[in-house]
Amino acid sequence: MQLIKYPPRSEWDSILVRPSLDTASLFGLVQNILDDVRRNGDKAVFEYERKFDCVSLQSLKVSDKEIQQARQAVPEALKQAVYLAKRNIEMFHATQKRDFQKVETCPGVTCWQKASPIEKVGLYVPGGTAPLFSTVLMLALPARIAGCKEIILCSPPDKDGQIHPAILFAAETAGVTDIFKIGGVQAVASMAYGTESVPKVYKIFGPGNQYVTAAKQLVSLKDVAIDMPAGPSEVQVIADETANPAFVAADLLSQAEHGVDSQSMLVTTSEKLVFDVSEQIDIQLFDLPRREIAEKSLINSKIILFDTLRDVVDFTNAYAPEHLIIETKNYHEIAEQITNAGSVFLGHYTPESAGDYASGTNHTLPTNGYAKAYSGVNLDSFIKKITFQEITEDGIDRIGPAIEIMAATELLDAHKNAVTLRLRTGNRKSSNCK
Amino acid sequence: MQLIKYPPRSEWDSILVRPSLDTASLFGLVQNILDDVRRNGDKAVFEYERKFDCVSLQSLKVSDKEIQQARQAVPEALKQAVYLAKRNIEMFHATQKRDFQKVETCPGVTCWQKASPIEKVGLYVPGGTAPLFSTVLMLALPARIAGCKEIILCSPPDKDGQIHPAILFAAETAGVTDIFKIGGVQAVASMAYGTESVPKVYKIFGPGNQYVTAAKQLVSLKDVAIDMPAGPSEVQVIADETANPAFVAADLLSQAEHGVDSQSMLVTTSEKLVFDVSEQIDIQLFDLPRREIAEKSLINSKIILFDTLRDVVDFTNAYAPEHLIIETKNYHEIAEQITNAGSVFLGHYTPESAGDYASGTNHTLPTNGYAKAYSGVNLDSFIKKITFQEITEDGIDRIGPAIEIMAATELLDAHKNAVTLRLRTGNRKSSNCK
Repeated sequence: MQLIKYPPRSEWDSILVRPSLDTASLFGLVQNILDDVRRNGDKAVFEYERKFDCVSLQSLKVSDKEIQQARQAVPEALKQAVYLAKRNIEMFHATQKRDFQKVETCPGVTCWQKASPIEKVGLYVPGGTAPLFSTVLMLALPARIAGCKEIILCSPPDKDGQIHPAILFAAETAGVTDIFKIGGVQAVASMAYGTESVPKVYKIFGPGNQYVTAAKQLVSLKDVAIDMPAGPSEVQVIADETANPAFVAADLLSQAEHGVDSQSMLVTTSEKLVFDVSEQIDIQLFDLPRREIAEKSLINSKIILFDTLRDVVDFTNAYAPEHLIIETKNYHEIAEQITNAGSVFLGHYTPESAGDYASGTNHTLPTNGYAKAYSGVNLDSFIKKITFQEITEDGIDRIGPAIEIMAATELLDAHKNAVTLRLRTGNRKSSNCK
Repeated sequence: MQLIKYPPRSEWDSILVRPSLDTASLFGLVQNILDDVRRNGDKAVFEYERKFDCVSLQSLKVSDKEIQQARQAVPEALKQAVYLAKRNIEMFHATQKRDFQKVETCPGVTCWQKASPIEKVGLYVPGGTAPLFSTVLMLALPARIAGCKEIILCSPPDKDGQIHPAILFAAETAGVTDIFKIGGVQAVASMAYGTESVPKVYKIFGPGNQYVTAAKQLVSLKDVAIDMPAGPSEVQVIADETANPAFVAADLLSQAEHGVDSQSMLVTTSEKLVFDVSEQIDIQLFDLPRREIAEKSLINSKIILFDTLRDVVDFTNAYAPEHLIIETKNYHEIAEQITNAGSVFLGHYTPESAGDYASGTNHTLPTNGYAKAYSGVNLDSFIKKITFQEITEDGIDRIGPAIEIMAATELLDAHKNAVTLRLRTGNRKSSNCK
């Protein structure tokens, strides 16, 4: 990790530069695959599965029998862990439901919002060596609570044409409607356009490699909504002299093992902690199976020493970390000043891992500074709000003259006319809501 | 308007095809302008203003004196109308504030959300013949209520280097921080990257022509968030034999006058109404200043006659109209079944114009079927939700073992380790939240 001591604010911008992710160079290649799937449907998907996942599939859809076998293959202890995570994720996301109130903005003019679930959503879960079944829970459970009718899931099969049992079990447990053995760009295309096997959806969620990210970006331009733009994962730890250096080191490493482009940042006012944490990182790194990845990722990672809490807070809000762990004495005081972050972990016993799996919060979060403008996935991600308004004859008399003059100023006479025709003769000459 | 009688469901897809908007062909040209402004800042912006808006500006920022002059130039009646609209828009959007509750998902594990305003937002308001000052109100007022600190506005100047007084007056009234005389792609670029004059923002809102749309799409790929993808405006009217044909015709025309690619749809179960509305359209068209635009737009527009209310509702949800006006006897009954729409206008005295200007609802809405996945602009558009979690020693003991087994299954040992280190010796062997 790079150690940066007391940087002046003029240098912050350069410290805050993240490992970049340029997907635009992939757009040509990715667009070709998207177009092919749009035109040729399942046939194209089968071919790309042969080409990219090296597997000849008989069917894209996972059968009931395969799901049943997965259920038997998953160890009981893991099942119990999934049930606990499910319980907590459901409990937290259920609190995000809300009521909408009607408001009479003017006598006879009533306005309100109604939440309506997105009818069809598609979830993408990457394959590879590690089965990210936790992401299945994080996406499918809120979709179910929101009331989405169709929740489909695509995940790449292994060379034997199988999806990892933990993913299938999590999907079944979380209420996914249909599961398809499709990976990469062809999965995004299938969900965006629909094929003979895969229903078209209205919004696509989930992580993926740079090809999947590029595909999601391209289809989001006009075909389908997506959860949020993606970037490499990251954590920032704020710690003071009360922090346990072993905990802090473990938290930084748990981010570093994600991928070589992950970023771990430690921001502190304690010079002693810098030394102790560095020592702990060396000790803990030694035993990690993903040591090589973590070591490379730590090259991108920084320890920044500041004089004041003000600097710590301002720097954090400028970085807008995906994950922020505050391991200080007065962590509530700092938390109140955080305006840009994805998910915040408070105190010495709240590791990021807790939110990654089982505290109840969502782990699909804005990276790359997107936390300045985006929320992480939450119940609202699966809902759209429709506005309604109902106006009486008295109501239109009251606001009509204002509408007429505004429409006329915008040179939209037909807009004006739609009001004029509805006004009663002898109506008020000017608007009045009081 | 094209009349389509009792179409079978197999034909709906082709009826639902919208006038297309293909911005991808503009990406090359638009990207060059974006890159130029990113590299050369104000200098590039001044040049594009000369080139595209045919004006040599001394300064990009609108001065206090210009705002003062605008205030004097706006007629008192228009000011009063703007105040009324402001009042209603504020009242409705203020009801969208919400409280977030803390929830203990497991003893010792507390999770909550906090709303945090997007610090810097940029609004784009098109120029041209008609000054769309109503859009200023629709974007700036919710931004203010949300608590955004910097609300900047870009709008193209006329050949004399001026922005229409109504736009300046609305901006001042709504609490815009700074106004800039910049139009088109160079405006989007200025807000996305910042220049010497224009601060960089985190989210860009507002309508525009196809170049502005393409620019917003391109910067949204990795530089800044945008409100939503854009498409031509549209209205659908559901009417029955109780509807006033003059009202229905006026509502269809108020959409048609927007632009030649606008779409107006009438869906009804009454054959008599079809005849009466068509007659009224001919009568009302005659007097419209924007008659030529409306006539062209009506070519894209359709009247669809159905047998049953079930068909009417299903067709509407499949179309997902930006604006939906329900002019029937039992409009509440239909409204309850609407799952895909931007904004809905109920009854015979609720024209779309009311929501366009002064009922209180927002008029920045999802077009092009995006209402299946997107909400219109609302208070949440200016807010992101940060999640927090706080776990006690007892809490991590309770959920820790579940996290350990899930992390191990995902082959993320450092994630597991961050929990293991925190568990007390003699802790539970398995998780328990009850």
